[in-house]
Amino acid sequence: MKEIKVFCPATIANVSCGFDVLGLALESVGDEMLVRKKETPGIKITKIEGQDLPLETNKNVAGVAGLALLNASNYKGGFEIEIFKNIKPGSGIGSSAASSAGAVWAMNELIDKQFSKLELVQFAMQGEKLASNVAHADNVAPAIFGGFTLVRSYEPLDIVPVNTPNQLYATVIHPQIEIKTSDSRKILKTNISLEKGIKQWGNLGGLIAGLFTEDYELISRSLEDHIIEPVRSILIPGFDAVKASAISAGALGCGISGSGPSIFALSKGQETAQIVAQTMSKVYEEIGLDFDVHVSKICSKGVKLI
Amino acid sequence: MKEIKVFCPATIANVSCGFDVLGLALESVGDEMLVRKKETPGIKITKIEGQDLPLETNKNVAGVAGLALLNASNYKGGFEIEIFKNIKPGSGIGSSAASSAGAVWAMNELIDKQFSKLELVQFAMQGEKLASNVAHADNVAPAIFGGFTLVRSYEPLDIVPVNTPNQLYATVIHPQIEIKTSDSRKILKTNISLEKGIKQWGNLGGLIAGLFTEDYELISRSLEDHIIEPVRSILIPGFDAVKASAISAGALGCGISGSGPSIFALSKGQETAQIVAQTMSKVYEEIGLDFDVHVSKICSKGVKLI
Repeated sequence: MKEIKVFCPATIANVSCGFDVLGLALESVGDEMLVRKKETPGIKITKIEGQDLPLETNKNVAGVAGLALLNASNYKGGFEIEIFKNIKPGSGIGSSAASSAGAVWAMNELIDKQFSKLELVQFAMQGEKLASNVAHADNVAPAIFGGFTLVRSYEPLDIVPVNTPNQLYATVIHPQIEIKTSDSRKILKTNISLEKGIKQWGNLGGLIAGLFTEDYELISRSLEDHIIEPVRSILIPGFDAVKASAISAGALGCGISGSGPSIFALSKGQETAQIVAQTMSKVYEEIGLDFDVHVSKICSKGVKLI
Repeated sequence: MKEIKVFCPATIANVSCGFDVLGLALESVGDEMLVRKKETPGIKITKIEGQDLPLETNKNVAGVAGLALLNASNYKGGFEIEIFKNIKPGSGIGSSAASSAGAVWAMNELIDKQFSKLELVQFAMQGEKLASNVAHADNVAPAIFGGFTLVRSYEPLDIVPVNTPNQLYATVIHPQIEIKTSDSRKILKTNISLEKGIKQWGNLGGLIAGLFTEDYELISRSLEDHIIEPVRSILIPGFDAVKASAISAGALGCGISGSGPSIFALSKGQETAQIVAQTMSKVYEEIGLDFDVHVSKICSKGVKLI
């Protein structure tokens, strides 16, 4: 195999009660990427379509993640990458993670799977570090493992795949405003009350149990965030109205996707997820704010061959 | 049916990473209780063996929990209770919970199961309130539901049964010192760092996932407590040495049982749990502190008929 084309899923990190530890991959929202083996060592990004992003290898997250893999491998050649971006950078659904994860997953296929999924996450985290100064894994882990994934620990890195019920659909709405990950991190308090902490780990435990038992009601009850959402949602215009509209339309839960500004809702069944998309959209239409909206199944696979 | 005899299991609350939300029931450590229907309304405690505890209904946790059930039911008669205590009050393995849970479970059997398990937990919580001023559920919930149970939320009360792997055994060692629940609660800080919170809910998520997938290694990695244990363990003589001995003997994890002073360890298989009991015991023998030690399977049932 000399070249492959892959789908790189968009991802939702945090998922309400799982701040910094939980993420999920979308099935039908994502980038495409073509990776080609070359005899010349190093990585060359030859084309980026869809978004205005740097072609220089060490300024591009796919390049940086790819170099991390290349340096760790015994492969003597190099790679060429073409990127077809559908996910807007800064939208909060893992744009940098899709590129980082897609690059290392594809390269690993081309060098006979030298690395485990866990190692691929570690390489992809270098791309995340370039994008946001923090080598976080809550987007790249689901992008590579698929479905819901839990980052139990960073030292050492421990990724736990979580069962993904078959009827779970995500609606994501992206209001066209810009929030930098670094800004939305800055406004978080460094301390929380023990009382809120207890509620949060109770809910995360409930969500994980609900995912394994495929208990949609339990999933719904557990999709609460008493810590991050009350602070960060202030940065997202219309958040409360969008959330209320999603819940009233039958969503199991609704919250901020990653550090925002995208807002996600989870629903049981595609039909409900579509209705939720319509009611969420109506809120931004009334406010007069431009937006993108997506409905997607949760992807049980991560990056995959096209 | 006019009278029944029940086994009331001892319970381990918190289980390292699940402070205030997680608990488990033991199969072979617990009290026995005989409950008899009477035509006279009200509750009479006619006998308590094994421990010196009040016979007055409204000063005894079984009495108070029983009255909560009685007041909510349409049953016009009353009950007589005989209690055979094996669990020492103040040991940290749910002595009051065993009596509270046992009483309401047995009474419910005698009045044709008028109440759900969730309602029984709510009645039993009144006993906990008498014992420690806080109507907590992390001991009474596993005592009634059996196995591992998660208290996802208190308002409204939401109890989530969690799968209990078949080979999981607990070792519990009880150094003969007294720590009041109220004292061990007082020394906790009311605020925690967000960073430690993230570690805690990552571990709780990992533990719940490990219990459902019966992944003993994941269970082991998740049995960490960065928040409560470092503070409370100061009150327990020899804690660090006991914990180190348990881990070196092959335990999956080790921590404080409830608010202490008992220390629990979880192991895969009875044989390892026995070896862990020996090594933990050796530490207290060397210190010269009296102790009780128990080895028990995790009980997949809660209170049960004898």
